[in-house]
Amino acid sequence: MKAIVNIYLKEGVLDPQGKAIHHALDAMNFQGVKDVRMGKQIILQLDSESKEAALAEVTKMAEDILANTVIEDYSIEIV
Amino acid sequence: MKAIVNIYLKEGVLDPQGKAIHHALDAMNFQGVKDVRMGKQIILQLDSESKEAALAEVTKMAEDILANTVIEDYSIEIV
Repeated sequence: MKAIVNIYLKEGVLDPQGKAIHHALDAMNFQGVKDVRMGKQIILQLDSESKEAALAEVTKMAEDILANTVIEDYSIEIV
Repeated sequence: MKAIVNIYLKEGVLDPQGKAIHHALDAMNFQGVKDVRMGKQIILQLDSESKEAALAEVTKMAEDILANTVIEDYSIEIV
């Protein structure tokens, strides 16, 4: 089973990587970009028995270690 | 219009960040994790007029600057 965890900075938290990309896109004449945010994507291969078990396990991983929940939000997709 | 660009290392390219996460999960007694890969997610806010225009623009961005296509693959989602 495959789990995709997307981790992104909470709204209002300064995102210097996103700002740098935005700046670079402007410098390369890409028009019409209003905002850029940069996040992480962690793809896990699991041998869980059910989607529910996988989701519970990955939620615990995200809370405990993958995301810094003070400044980051996360979303989990089991495929 | 919002574009999500997922960038991940090609199969076979060594992923030290993924390995480090895998190691940390093992050390924290998370069972049943077979593989971990780490990627980037870039979220762009665009004022494109159509999904097609946005996709074309973002594909050019990904090829030119966002992804290193020698070692990375990318996927684009327009929402």
